[in-house]
Amino acid sequence: MRARGIHHLGVAVDDLDEALATYARLFGAALEHREAVPDQGVDAAAVLVGQDRVELLAPLAEETPVGRFLAERGPGMHHVAYEVDDLRSTLADLAEQGVELIDSEPREGLFGLEVAFVHPHAVHGVLAEVVSRG
Amino acid sequence: MRARGIHHLGVAVDDLDEALATYARLFGAALEHREAVPDQGVDAAAVLVGQDRVELLAPLAEETPVGRFLAERGPGMHHVAYEVDDLRSTLADLAEQGVELIDSEPREGLFGLEVAFVHPHAVHGVLAEVVSRG
Repeated sequence: MRARGIHHLGVAVDDLDEALATYARLFGAALEHREAVPDQGVDAAAVLVGQDRVELLAPLAEETPVGRFLAERGPGMHHVAYEVDDLRSTLADLAEQGVELIDSEPREGLFGLEVAFVHPHAVHGVLAEVVSRG
Repeated sequence: MRARGIHHLGVAVDDLDEALATYARLFGAALEHREAVPDQGVDAAAVLVGQDRVELLAPLAEETPVGRFLAERGPGMHHVAYEVDDLRSTLADLAEQGVELIDSEPREGLFGLEVAFVHPHAVHGVLAEVVSRG
């Protein structure tokens, strides 16, 4: 596959308001979107630093994917998202190469994106997301 | 401070050649620079995915910063580097704000960059690097 670039970095945080304030103060980050998504158990914000995007992810409860991540690893880098033009054909391509996928089909992500996750085993320990604009 | 954007993501890997092959195959990453830096104990490569940059870092020995990181955490995300115009004034600014810095003075980084690290305590668990072109 050939990605267009990095769509965003995903960062797990304990408190979204505090994290937004930190990213604004330290890096001049500007809020792009903010949305609580109970289905995914996450209170999320996308911020832009220049043209680059960081997704800040706070859990809505302990028993959520981000809640469990924080309990195990603490706050920090969660995933790296790569943007592609055609998510479905990219996933078929990756599956054909034997790449270990968490999602073999596109699913709805945050902020109107179509997303699928690639297992960190396949990317030297980095959880990767593949994203296309829905 | 106001960063121009994300200069690169730093990823710790066990084997640089394998990681380069993975990033080329999965994301279409193109090699930008490659350099072994014995002073820093690291064999490093910068790759571009579209206009975005990932720095792949393999240790030259176990008793190096990246070697110790791998022993403790395993391969994965290592740092996020933000580009600024004036590193020295940025560091003065951050210090004045009470931000916990690992490097209070610019030092020579990889590939001709001037760099300084900000403690992950100050950035919600993410090791941040501030970079300017040397």
